[in-house]
Amino acid sequence: MEDTGWRPVKRTRTFEDVLAQIERRIAEDGLTVGDRLPAERQLAEQLGVSRSSVREAMRVLETLGVVSSQVGRGPDAGAVLTSRPDSALTDLLRLHLGLASLEMREVIDTRHMIEQWAAAQAATAGADTSALAAALAGMDGARTAEEFVEYDTAFHCAIADASGNRLIAAIMRSLRDSMRRYSVEAVQRLGDTSVLRADHVRILEAIERGEAGEATEAVSEHLAHAYPSLFR
Amino acid sequence: MEDTGWRPVKRTRTFEDVLAQIERRIAEDGLTVGDRLPAERQLAEQLGVSRSSVREAMRVLETLGVVSSQVGRGPDAGAVLTSRPDSALTDLLRLHLGLASLEMREVIDTRHMIEQWAAAQAATAGADTSALAAALAGMDGARTAEEFVEYDTAFHCAIADASGNRLIAAIMRSLRDSMRRYSVEAVQRLGDTSVLRADHVRILEAIERGEAGEATEAVSEHLAHAYPSLFR
Repeated sequence: MEDTGWRPVKRTRTFEDVLAQIERRIAEDGLTVGDRLPAERQLAEQLGVSRSSVREAMRVLETLGVVSSQVGRGPDAGAVLTSRPDSALTDLLRLHLGLASLEMREVIDTRHMIEQWAAAQAATAGADTSALAAALAGMDGARTAEEFVEYDTAFHCAIADASGNRLIAAIMRSLRDSMRRYSVEAVQRLGDTSVLRADHVRILEAIERGEAGEATEAVSEHLAHAYPSLFR
Repeated sequence: MEDTGWRPVKRTRTFEDVLAQIERRIAEDGLTVGDRLPAERQLAEQLGVSRSSVREAMRVLETLGVVSSQVGRGPDAGAVLTSRPDSALTDLLRLHLGLASLEMREVIDTRHMIEQWAAAQAATAGADTSALAAALAGMDGARTAEEFVEYDTAFHCAIADASGNRLIAAIMRSLRDSMRRYSVEAVQRLGDTSVLRADHVRILEAIERGEAGEATEAVSEHLAHAYPSLFR
């Protein structure tokens, strides 16, 4: 294409300018989790923009899990900075799975990678396994596939938590939440959950004994049992 | 706490109802990437809500990378469904790093996990390495740390792409984008990039020869060279 010397004008939308200013203030003023942003009305006045532009920027920040939603707080309360990367990730994964721009196979392979890593880290670090044991007891008492999956999710998220890496834990939680319906169907198809139980005990005991290699292998075999058609 | 028989009323906000309906239509009508949603005005009329509620829902969907922004398309053009999980993830990570609700160490450990996995997958699958070779040539010609990091990012994202898993690739791209400034500073501190070059060649050749174990180890040593103070 001939270079005409003209460059396309980058049109930014008002809410994007609002977002950029909020992000700059967070970086420069060292605002952190728990701090409050100015109220919508006040921000709109100070920035010289409409309140709806401020509101759109706030929806984006809520979506990304960095400000809390202010339902029922009244129009004068400013949004509070928060740390919920997992809720944002869950929405993202669920929608992309819904659009078929991601496949369940990609999600399960990602889960496999994370869970092997986290189990090895937890075993090496001698992490506290009480949350894993509690989730195991919950699965034993579960009366429906839904209830089983709830405790199963708690068990696997506890492994990620035990790794000590909050980003890994957030990704794991969002992977599990976004595939919840799929997991329930997998448990229903399986019927008997005794194989899964034995896998969970094996993973728990390997972490308790500090055996990273055994924990990693136990995770692999568990996923092969849980998703025989998808797992490689 | 005493059970009074009352349950808190869950207040939903109008834009959340709009979001839920759009998500349901995506699931039920099999809408997919490239399909167009109704225009803002039309959606607002059909749902019986204000246009600003529709606009807020659209901002959320844009933020999550599932609809494209419609700058300059006019008010009658509906948003197009899209697949950009990496841009959403990048915003999410950058903001959480800015808020210090995530630490750089957690991001780098996550990158290490992903990159080892992806390099091993790429080696095992005999993936095409031409994008890696091109990025390597780019680094050799780079005149500034910024330019070096641009090609370095391309090299490492190409490893993730070569794994064939789009979720892993999206996470890698967002990790690299969110730590761009940090990477530039690391390269400036290092000064001489010849050690990094040798690492890149080693990774590339291991993948080309299909040696998964060697590729994994080369990735580890490379990160230790690149981030000596953070990497364990």
